Amino acid sequence: MKKSIIAIITFFSLWTGNAMAQENREIESKIDSIMSLMTLEEKVAMCHAQSKFSSPGVPRLGIPEVWMSDGPHGVRGEINWDNWGYANWTNDSITAFPALTALASTFNPELSHQYGVAIGEEARYRKKDVLLGPGVNIYRTPLNGRNFEYMGEDPFLASTMVVPYVQGVQQNGVAACVKHYALNNQEKWRGHINVNVSDRALHEIYLPAFKAAVTEGKAWSIMGAYNKYDGQWCCHNDILLNHILKRDWAFDGVVVTDWGGAHDTKESVENGLDIEMGTWTNGLTSSIDLAYDNYFLANPFLNGLKEGKYSEDQLNDKVRRILRMIFRTGLDRNRPWGSVNTEEHQDVARRVAQEGIVLLKNEKGFFPIDPEKKQVIAVIGENATKSMTVGGGSSELKAKYEISPLDGIRSRFPNATILHSLGYASGPSAYGRVIPSELDQDSLKNAAIEIASKADLVLFVGGLNKNHHQDCEGEDRLSYDLPFGQDELIAKLLEANPNMGMILVSGNAVSMPWLSKVPAVMQAWYLGSEAGNAIADVISGDINPSGKLPFTFPVKLEDNGAHFYGELSYPGDSVNQYYKEDILVGYRWHDTKKIKPQFAFGFGLSYTSFEISGLEVNDKQFKSGGTIEVTCTLTNTGDVQGSEVAQLYVGKVGSKVERAKKELKAFDKVSLMAGESKKVTLEVSVDDLAYYDNDKQDWVLESGKYVLYLGNASDNITGKKSITIN
Amino acid sequence: MKKSIIAIITFFSLWTGNAMAQENREIESKIDSIMSLMTLEEKVAMCHAQSKFSSPGVPRLGIPEVWMSDGPHGVRGEINWDNWGYANWTNDSITAFPALTALASTFNPELSHQYGVAIGEEARYRKKDVLLGPGVNIYRTPLNGRNFEYMGEDPFLASTMVVPYVQGVQQNGVAACVKHYALNNQEKWRGHINVNVSDRALHEIYLPAFKAAVTEGKAWSIMGAYNKYDGQWCCHNDILLNHILKRDWAFDGVVVTDWGGAHDTKESVENGLDIEMGTWTNGLTSSIDLAYDNYFLANPFLNGLKEGKYSEDQLNDKVRRILRMIFRTGLDRNRPWGSVNTEEHQDVARRVAQEGIVLLKNEKGFFPIDPEKKQVIAVIGENATKSMTVGGGSSELKAKYEISPLDGIRSRFPNATILHSLGYASGPSAYGRVIPSELDQDSLKNAAIEIASKADLVLFVGGLNKNHHQDCEGEDRLSYDLPFGQDELIAKLLEANPNMGMILVSGNAVSMPWLSKVPAVMQAWYLGSEAGNAIADVISGDINPSGKLPFTFPVKLEDNGAHFYGELSYPGDSVNQYYKEDILVGYRWHDTKKIKPQFAFGFGLSYTSFEISGLEVNDKQFKSGGTIEVTCTLTNTGDVQGSEVAQLYVGKVGSKVERAKKELKAFDKVSLMAGESKKVTLEVSVDDLAYYDNDKQDWVLESGKYVLYLGNASDNITGKKSITIN
Repeated sequence: MKKSIIAIITFFSLWTGNAMAQENREIESKIDSIMSLMTLEEKVAMCHAQSKFSSPGVPRLGIPEVWMSDGPHGVRGEINWDNWGYANWTNDSITAFPALTALASTFNPELSHQYGVAIGEEARYRKKDVLLGPGVNIYRTPLNGRNFEYMGEDPFLASTMVVPYVQGVQQNGVAACVKHYALNNQEKWRGHINVNVSDRALHEIYLPAFKAAVTEGKAWSIMGAYNKYDGQWCCHNDILLNHILKRDWAFDGVVVTDWGGAHDTKESVENGLDIEMGTWTNGLTSSIDLAYDNYFLANPFLNGLKEGKYSEDQLNDKVRRILRMIFRTGLDRNRPWGSVNTEEHQDVARRVAQEGIVLLKNEKGFFPIDPEKKQVIAVIGENATKSMTVGGGSSELKAKYEISPLDGIRSRFPNATILHSLGYASGPSAYGRVIPSELDQDSLKNAAIEIASKADLVLFVGGLNKNHHQDCEGEDRLSYDLPFGQDELIAKLLEANPNMGMILVSGNAVSMPWLSKVPAVMQAWYLGSEAGNAIADVISGDINPSGKLPFTFPVKLEDNGAHFYGELSYPGDSVNQYYKEDILVGYRWHDTKKIKPQFAFGFGLSYTSFEISGLEVNDKQFKSGGTIEVTCTLTNTGDVQGSEVAQLYVGKVGSKVERAKKELKAFDKVSLMAGESKKVTLEVSVDDLAYYDNDKQDWVLESGKYVLYLGNASDNITGKKSITIN
Repeated sequence: MKKSIIAIITFFSLWTGNAMAQENREIESKIDSIMSLMTLEEKVAMCHAQSKFSSPGVPRLGIPEVWMSDGPHGVRGEINWDNWGYANWTNDSITAFPALTALASTFNPELSHQYGVAIGEEARYRKKDVLLGPGVNIYRTPLNGRNFEYMGEDPFLASTMVVPYVQGVQQNGVAACVKHYALNNQEKWRGHINVNVSDRALHEIYLPAFKAAVTEGKAWSIMGAYNKYDGQWCCHNDILLNHILKRDWAFDGVVVTDWGGAHDTKESVENGLDIEMGTWTNGLTSSIDLAYDNYFLANPFLNGLKEGKYSEDQLNDKVRRILRMIFRTGLDRNRPWGSVNTEEHQDVARRVAQEGIVLLKNEKGFFPIDPEKKQVIAVIGENATKSMTVGGGSSELKAKYEISPLDGIRSRFPNATILHSLGYASGPSAYGRVIPSELDQDSLKNAAIEIASKADLVLFVGGLNKNHHQDCEGEDRLSYDLPFGQDELIAKLLEANPNMGMILVSGNAVSMPWLSKVPAVMQAWYLGSEAGNAIADVISGDINPSGKLPFTFPVKLEDNGAHFYGELSYPGDSVNQYYKEDILVGYRWHDTKKIKPQFAFGFGLSYTSFEISGLEVNDKQFKSGGTIEVTCTLTNTGDVQGSEVAQLYVGKVGSKVERAKKELKAFDKVSLMAGESKKVTLEVSVDDLAYYDNDKQDWVLESGKYVLYLGNASDNITGKKSITIN
């Protein structure tokens, strides 16, 4: 680059930086003058809901209301003003994007940005100021009913993926609302369980993705969790909100409760809550005592202010934050107009789904299946046709369309004879939407076996399905096994036709007692509007799978760190629970304790093969402030184009504290033509190797020897190097 | 002005003119490119409702929806998606402005502009793109149930007042929707009556206010009327929409139906309709046949297009207009943010109410009433306390507050003892909102007589009340008399205490059999949120009344031109009606036929007295293209500050066609301190003296002698001059 161009660019950067600082100053000064005109009542009104999904502005001063919407996978249908019923509008059908587990599985931050942009555009068109997502609670146990909404078990992966999502949403003038802050890692007893966790695990495992969303993503809002931490509900938690979020991370946005997450006026006033939502439902239609005016941050707050119990400074801090968010959203004259159901959005949804699908097993070249071939394919399983955008809780969507796996397969395999049989029926759904007639499970099974025996190959499309006690908000799973007799059915089907590929639709790991008997397994997540197309894309080989597991699949539940220590660790005694596995979450546990998983974190197959070679490090000795640069060469050694994820883990040898054997510190996804090689550089800040010291209450960078592990899965390390930190 | 300044101003005007033309070209070119991307289905979708008050945008292309709201006097409460029920939102309480009759009575175009700005700001804050108002149907008969929403009987007054209202609304980036185009001058049989009217009356009386709203106010939308003209429904009327509105007036905006005003696909396609609204209610909850897809401009239009029955050009013209309106509203990045319930809005509401109140009679100095005096005031009548923002049809409002006359009087007369008695009860309201218990009308009457007899003075607050068959959309009044036995009650009250002032709350003229027996009568209209305060302002003398009647109060119904010719003239035979009085509407009829009204158009008293003197005209001979300048001196000859309206009427002497004796051609409202004089100049374009020739189908300026009549009421002419047009 020529010097003059650099000068221009430098000038421009400085200029835009200055312009932004100038703009921020102008906004703060506008906020000053607005606040000087506001009454106490108007200020308090902004701190709590006026309806299920909105909070008041200042009509008299032209300050708009704040309109929020679920959720992380698409903009939810319109809800009634004052109860949970759908408003039956007809303009709210949207693009259903893949669930965040699928997004995490792509290991592709650029796709995450596109996802954020697209969902943000839809929120903007729908006139929403705040999108209630993304969710970045750490996957601690496969039983958590809401894992499918989150980005897996690794703080580095979740951090890397959440930042571009937040940025993408917010470039539309729509606030992302990162949730659920913090430690809402199970649904069981979520409303009151008090999570006991070491500061170290909190800072190393459970907070990094929130911190990245705030400090790098610059999230404009964050949602408090339902549960307690340190004996205080997270929505008004002194440590989490005052100390960590607002002081340490310098968060200048708005803390919103989860719906009904506030429980106390004094704590809500003092401990960093800004907007209280959903405390009581049906305020209007129920007794006056339950109306919005009686929210903790409504009249009780107002009266406390008048009595001198609370200071106007406390109020002003909340109002200033809310106004700041409004200036960034509803009052941003330059924000784009948004759009819904564009081809681009549908394309983003499809690409995330394609890249998120993880091929777990593929013997005898079961996949891909040649779409030109005339053959009989039996598609068995309820999930081949069941809508997966409905159910699951607040992430439920009113999709404009949803391609089922069966539809997708039928349309991509016109030369095949596609037979379909349910095989099993799940019964009434969580919300009573589908009440099947009393079905004879045996006859379903027999019908499935019959078509399986006639087919050249069988695709079993099963898994979980967003019913209660499966992948669904509000309750955890009751078992690690597949529900509805699927394991037994699978065993029978394999007797009839062992040429069977498993397509698991779920947001969680499941036990696989039949694993050794099936040639192929594909983890397909909840993939949204384009689910069936994306599955067919991968099955047919149009798309070479490149997804990597964002969490470990243990063989059995007891192999998981959260479950190893018994009930006090999970689910707790209903009052307290203790994260006894501490920092050893997910692959950290399996690695360190040498417990072989069914499928490891970071694992995922391809239709081609790759080689990672030529591992080099820029130095042998490092010190704080430095950057470790790891280079290697990725080669596609197979016959077809494909993408591989180079994964760099780092472990401390001989640490004075307990350490995981290794932790993910960098990754890069690379697309390679058959035979192609590319050089990859992975960078790690030396300071990111620090651990959080419980006693010092700070990060400590240990000197000594560290090992760099390079591979394409946490359990497939193909190269190692030692370095020393002084 | 110095030449250089003029040059600068000229340059600036040219520049802004050019900038606007440039902006318009840019919008048209954006519309071109948007339309080139749209499917036939997307285009057709924009031409009809998707819900009770919205029509679709193009979600895929980021073109926003169009959200509309009633109505002319305030932004209506939120209505359900798909039925007429209120949505029970709690963020939709607004400022209720005075009804348009009150606004017209102010004879103050600047106030009309402020009204438009204020209501536009409220619509904007409420996220409405189109405000369904103002209404400018001509007051033809006192029985019309919707007169209160219109601007009186005179086309010049209505034209002068509607233009600044439209401009005020639209400067907020909210489209005014002028209604109901045209000839919707009665509610009875409004859905099907075919109005037979001469071209001359149409152009001279019934269209000018619409024309002014379009050509001068630059209204962005207009609403078709329910009735028929020329055998065709007005919402798809070839003459009214294609020929007059879009060709002759070069209207470039959107024609919207009244709700349910479309009846035929072919006519809707061909005759200038752009958006069809409200054709069937409850589309979703009723059978599929009644859904929005079956609107005349929905699938029947789409199918016709596909069959080649209609051309895409016809569709494109509609879509282009709708997109143009969207660019002026929802896609205008510079539009202000709006506000609701500001002090300014409340102040505008109060000032319009103060200036709109018309003092009709005031003997023995009954008004003003000294607020310092300790005395007993009996306030009698249901309208002293009845909410007048509720009821009346689509103009009904959810006012944030409404000061009743009794409240207003109580608060302004703290030294008086205020007694209150209903005197009568109106019974169940139009909408069943208030179901009073079975009340004994006799006991109400007796209670009122008792307090009247004890009082120093009586204020009777009666009139009409927006119940069905009164001032209410959907049906006309059944009688010219006051309802609910008020006349009999008034007679009894006068026996008990003749010191009684009448405060008539209505939007229509009523018979006044008791007129000679009461010392004072005040016409108070429907005054919105500030009603009671404004009434107390005038009663107390804080404000000197300056309103002028915007329509004639005949002594009896038969004295009115519409009723003179019997039932075929009003209300018609249910199929047809004939406007037999032709151009002689209102005071034109009374003047020409020499029928003395109870109170004349333009009439209104003051607490002071005025003199109009020194009438001069700039010339004696005029020709087409010229301007008649009339000057005079207005003097406040009384003791208090007050405002007077100089009214200039013009009549043709010896016309070859029938002419009204005189027609209002200019007016000016002037505020004068006691003793003060001001020179007033009134201008009339010579061409505005033309009549519309039925045979030539054009305006004809007759040469010959004309008389200029100057006065402060149509029946109080204090100066005359003759001029000649060559």
